[in-house]
Amino acid sequence: MNDSLPISEIPGGITAPVGFLAGGLYAGIRKAKKDLAIIYSPTPAIAAAVFTTNKTQAAPVLVDKEQLARSSACRAIVVNSGNANACTGDRGMQDAWAMVDAAAATLNIPRSEVLVSSTGVIGQYLPIDKILVGITHLAGSLTTTGSADAAEAIMTTDTFAKEIAVRFTVDGIPVTIGAIAKGSGMIAPNMATMLGFATTDAAIEPAALQQALTTANRVSFNRLTVDGDTSTNDMMAVLANGKAGNAVITSGTNAFRQFTSALEYVLIHLAKLIARDGEGATKLVEIHVFGASSEEAAERAAGTIANSNLVKTAIHGADANWGRIIAAVGRSGIDFDPALVEIGFNGLPILRRKYEIVLDEDKAKVELLKDHIVVQVNLNQGTAQAIFYTCDLTKDYIHINASYRS
Amino acid sequence: MNDSLPISEIPGGITAPVGFLAGGLYAGIRKAKKDLAIIYSPTPAIAAAVFTTNKTQAAPVLVDKEQLARSSACRAIVVNSGNANACTGDRGMQDAWAMVDAAAATLNIPRSEVLVSSTGVIGQYLPIDKILVGITHLAGSLTTTGSADAAEAIMTTDTFAKEIAVRFTVDGIPVTIGAIAKGSGMIAPNMATMLGFATTDAAIEPAALQQALTTANRVSFNRLTVDGDTSTNDMMAVLANGKAGNAVITSGTNAFRQFTSALEYVLIHLAKLIARDGEGATKLVEIHVFGASSEEAAERAAGTIANSNLVKTAIHGADANWGRIIAAVGRSGIDFDPALVEIGFNGLPILRRKYEIVLDEDKAKVELLKDHIVVQVNLNQGTAQAIFYTCDLTKDYIHINASYRS
Repeated sequence: MNDSLPISEIPGGITAPVGFLAGGLYAGIRKAKKDLAIIYSPTPAIAAAVFTTNKTQAAPVLVDKEQLARSSACRAIVVNSGNANACTGDRGMQDAWAMVDAAAATLNIPRSEVLVSSTGVIGQYLPIDKILVGITHLAGSLTTTGSADAAEAIMTTDTFAKEIAVRFTVDGIPVTIGAIAKGSGMIAPNMATMLGFATTDAAIEPAALQQALTTANRVSFNRLTVDGDTSTNDMMAVLANGKAGNAVITSGTNAFRQFTSALEYVLIHLAKLIARDGEGATKLVEIHVFGASSEEAAERAAGTIANSNLVKTAIHGADANWGRIIAAVGRSGIDFDPALVEIGFNGLPILRRKYEIVLDEDKAKVELLKDHIVVQVNLNQGTAQAIFYTCDLTKDYIHINASYRS
Repeated sequence: MNDSLPISEIPGGITAPVGFLAGGLYAGIRKAKKDLAIIYSPTPAIAAAVFTTNKTQAAPVLVDKEQLARSSACRAIVVNSGNANACTGDRGMQDAWAMVDAAAATLNIPRSEVLVSSTGVIGQYLPIDKILVGITHLAGSLTTTGSADAAEAIMTTDTFAKEIAVRFTVDGIPVTIGAIAKGSGMIAPNMATMLGFATTDAAIEPAALQQALTTANRVSFNRLTVDGDTSTNDMMAVLANGKAGNAVITSGTNAFRQFTSALEYVLIHLAKLIARDGEGATKLVEIHVFGASSEEAAERAAGTIANSNLVKTAIHGADANWGRIIAAVGRSGIDFDPALVEIGFNGLPILRRKYEIVLDEDKAKVELLKDHIVVQVNLNQGTAQAIFYTCDLTKDYIHINASYRS
């Protein structure tokens, strides 16, 4: 869908767009790893965000929803890793607001223009004193090259920092979107980021920004799964400060479609990075379901395959066990005819209609030993399609999660 | 619910009820392991069954549905392990019917009175010649003590055979139910047995037998999950031959409730054995959700917790990570107030209302190191409850499933 839009990837992450500062430092929440990040636009900016659909919502999610319900004006996002501030009751809410207040005071901006985000263990109180001191230090040392530090500071079990920036033109004016994200367990649709933050110098109306984010999120983070679990803290927020100087983008225009495509590009890129870096993962796995009767059916089938422990362990073992794939589609709840299904790996046909098995074990092994597997499932019943992003399931996932709090 | 009904466990499995024969032998489908079983009532009997809800249904499931739609009269069940005969198209159907015909011919009973069942790898043709020879041999050597051999022959990755028999009275007449089952991966509700077979000498109307099975199945195999995957072959069948001499049981009577309770007892027992023997499992885990607004909500919350890889890895690591439990309830889709939730392990309180953490790490560790964990979740919003049966998720699950076909 981005074929027609020239998009260039550029360095710089969230500080690539004009007018954004960022930074990350070690505030003492975790053991010897950067754990606090701030993203900041000195000039007025607006925000849009999408949040976890989990009924158990962390304090920062509740605070941000309250902030954005009041106004889309937003200039700063404060993020900590190492502690989710979830299931922490009244004290958790006070702590989240204290983070807002500390950032607002130090950056000298209205309290209403700060969002907060947390990720880490559920059910423990924040070491709020350390965090408030950290915010004060960090707010004074933000830079136009701070994206990498911020990306590093929001990591939890991630093994690498995730950032991207793209440049494209809107009505002939160069516009930039930058983004960072972190995974890498408790990741399943609605939402599944776990945390993502984007910046853009595009000028865009608040409602259009929200619409673009919701649209792009639907085909990226909402089609990403590592383990089927959904976090209490998931959020994806985007700040737009208008410094690119383009005419303000409104819904339904060509400029809007271009902006949305670019944002999709950015979020799908991050979704793939998160899948590839899923806890214990050794492979990025894309599940393409096509020939479906509707996009919803394609999405449901792809999501069920992507969440199947049996499919994911088979792929880990480079075992072309296509029966598990067709069984997963069978329990997905969609209406289809198993005898019409065709399956392939990386373009290599495995199964044709009427259960004709064309599997060449040696060739399949070669494909499945690669670190990027595209599972192709043709339902042969329509023209709709969907792609889900996931990873293999390994012993390291068990190892990481059997002792996460220790 | 069985408190008021005296039920005694007795030895003998499916050959404990009067008038049943069974056996198991090595027919050459698998490598050096019994792989073919027959259950047989020389006198006329009836059958009831429940089947997988997976849209991809194996040939034997399709055959059995056709058989039972025609008549409930049934005297024999033939089961093979090592090959699921699923996704095998027309040839798979022919093979399944050939198994029916071979058993009918050798046992000298009508073709319509034979059910078949298969379990194992999906998408490979049965070695039908070996199976037909095996059926002929086995049909001639069935015994009244053959339950253990049959239980062994239906095992796939199970590490132990699963059987039980119970005796109780119906209107003063002793009645027996026996059963065998196999797990132990690709197990999730609707149904989740993977295969179960029961026999009873009770006299019972066909409709009442089906109703009792459906009722008992709902609180046992449909609340059992190992990995969230649902098989193409799942079935649970029960044969009743009336040899106990009781007055024929009909729906809605006290005798019917007694019979249903006893069948529930049997199926829950087997569900626990299957969970305990889940692939790679080291612990039986029961998820009790109570204080729910409806049984459906309790079941949904319990099922979501039971399917959470994060909860199951934490329990494997004896890590009292209750945040993952409350997060799982949060994504289950039920309406509840997280701040009212209380959580305990084996009766040891961990979390009280308003996120009051009463977790004693040392005591929790003692409980979580046991091989039977009961996770108690009180939603404090009503009086409904449900129990799900599952196991921990371990590196051995990955090991077993990364190379299942090899």
